[in-house]
Amino acid sequence: MGVALSLGRRGLGRVWPNPNVGCVIVKDGRVIGRGWTADGGRPHAEARALAGIDAAGATAYVTLEPCAHHGQTPPCSAALIAAGVTRVVIAADDPDPRVSGKGIAMLEAAGIDVVTGVRGAEARVDLAGFLSRVTQNRPFVTLKLASSFDGRIATAIGESKWITGPAARRAVHAMRARHDAVLVGAGTVRADDPTLTVRGLGVTRQPVRIVASRGLDIEAKALRATTDEAPLWLCHGAGASLADWQGEGVETVLCETAEGAIDPVDMMKQLADRGLTRVFCEGGGRLAASLLGAGLVDDIVGFTAGLALGAEGTPSIGAMARGPLADVARYRLVETQQIGPDLMHRWARN
Amino acid sequence: MGVALSLGRRGLGRVWPNPNVGCVIVKDGRVIGRGWTADGGRPHAEARALAGIDAAGATAYVTLEPCAHHGQTPPCSAALIAAGVTRVVIAADDPDPRVSGKGIAMLEAAGIDVVTGVRGAEARVDLAGFLSRVTQNRPFVTLKLASSFDGRIATAIGESKWITGPAARRAVHAMRARHDAVLVGAGTVRADDPTLTVRGLGVTRQPVRIVASRGLDIEAKALRATTDEAPLWLCHGAGASLADWQGEGVETVLCETAEGAIDPVDMMKQLADRGLTRVFCEGGGRLAASLLGAGLVDDIVGFTAGLALGAEGTPSIGAMARGPLADVARYRLVETQQIGPDLMHRWARN
Repeated sequence: MGVALSLGRRGLGRVWPNPNVGCVIVKDGRVIGRGWTADGGRPHAEARALAGIDAAGATAYVTLEPCAHHGQTPPCSAALIAAGVTRVVIAADDPDPRVSGKGIAMLEAAGIDVVTGVRGAEARVDLAGFLSRVTQNRPFVTLKLASSFDGRIATAIGESKWITGPAARRAVHAMRARHDAVLVGAGTVRADDPTLTVRGLGVTRQPVRIVASRGLDIEAKALRATTDEAPLWLCHGAGASLADWQGEGVETVLCETAEGAIDPVDMMKQLADRGLTRVFCEGGGRLAASLLGAGLVDDIVGFTAGLALGAEGTPSIGAMARGPLADVARYRLVETQQIGPDLMHRWARN
Repeated sequence: MGVALSLGRRGLGRVWPNPNVGCVIVKDGRVIGRGWTADGGRPHAEARALAGIDAAGATAYVTLEPCAHHGQTPPCSAALIAAGVTRVVIAADDPDPRVSGKGIAMLEAAGIDVVTGVRGAEARVDLAGFLSRVTQNRPFVTLKLASSFDGRIATAIGESKWITGPAARRAVHAMRARHDAVLVGAGTVRADDPTLTVRGLGVTRQPVRIVASRGLDIEAKALRATTDEAPLWLCHGAGASLADWQGEGVETVLCETAEGAIDPVDMMKQLADRGLTRVFCEGGGRLAASLLGAGLVDDIVGFTAGLALGAEGTPSIGAMARGPLADVARYRLVETQQIGPDLMHRWARN
């Protein structure tokens, strides 16, 4: 199952709207097949693992309950049965109502020995994006904060290049690649004119780039110039300047607004409806505050640089109207790592 | 020498104005004497290590060059010679002009074999407070920042108890105990009414508590109530409300002012003149910004809690009027540790 989990992680950021599943086929103590969900979500991991082998009498290790429904591919449970597999070991159950328990039932009805829950907690972490989309109708959201040790993302005059070092920035590109989409607010687009592509890593499949901007009153030169390299989605409110964007090859996503800003809950629902399972938010402070305030942030990745910028600097997280300290949601530290001169620290929702 | 360094560290925060030295005497391959600078700075490490043993023909390992001058104790170099030691291994040279090289010369003149620079870099870290006082006429300054991951030390309504957990607060008490003094600004005294003593660690020797307040317009109930437990020094400017503090058993330190605030450079000189070698600054944001801006901070200890407080919260570091990003001093990450639910990260001046 460890190998299957590792194979499944290869699909992170590449298989949406489908889950990033891994599968290993073992016969007579030897691995005879390995598969993971292909880019774009098809073929599924099981079909790829079973391709071209004789799996009669073998055991299949799968990180997620095999599907039982005819979608754009035949059900994987049927494929496992047809291949003559006699035992299936599953890490996580599939909460998708079209599958939930039905895959297991189909296997058991065919006389296959089914074991579930093997390394399930790890699988649920790896599959968090898919599970969030299916059970909460929103993507799994990672928030990145790269700041000075006093939590500033730019100096008083707006200088932000560079607070963290090249190694941290490379790590950020690798994180982008493991998400379906990169999300920023209008302020960041105005301040930094970013491209938001994954660069320097030989990546062939770019994440979707998303800008949240109620009025779309953004120039976004670098984003406009690269719509042939990576998709660009614009989350906006009613009455936004859509005319500016006609013929630019972008997808526009109309979201509800609340208090003059895009409603983050509706935006995330819209993104899940379009199939996104993992979103990497890179700020700025206002969008970060909006997502945190609405309880929509699952993981936080901090990069802390060894310098102080002082209170005139731009805060990493904007105004939040927090109530009593005891009511503020706490995150759990899950990883720390020195990356170049900077400190990376990752926190997960408690 | 490793043992001698370890013994020397026992003196951290306890031996000012003297250096925290460690000494081990080895004869025929066996340790026959061990000593470290006693509380208050006397007797010195060498005298304690030599007490009651026959050191004729032995080797002495000392973390700092033995003193050569008659102060309140006879010179340690003379003591080593009198004891018949035939070899002295030294980690760090003593830059004190009364010693510098003279201790070594005295030993060599007596026919003793002297080796220097053994684990010198480690010794200079341990002795950083003393070295800073002697060579820069200011104490070594550690700045503590305990904040949310967006760098806030209190909520919009001033709530700060508690952002970090009990384990981090216990670690802070242990850090206080390893410094000669704890320093805070007037704002922190007004907001938190702190006691600033070391509690819960069985410490018998409390660090000096120092408040930097130009006008001394502070109530400081808890500090006033505990002047019999630990010394209290007040760094103030000309024209401060000294009358409020008469008969309170406090020491007042008149400092120069600049732009309406205490000049941090002069304050540190005053503290060094009074013998302090290691100062632990616990904020608030304005004092932290003043010390950082003047280049007076040697070590920074961050405690980051897993929560966001938003931009209305109190910043850990106040306004700094920073210039171009390229000119901002960078600190080097030297240690990270999870302490309870919080992340401790320590940075040293590059």
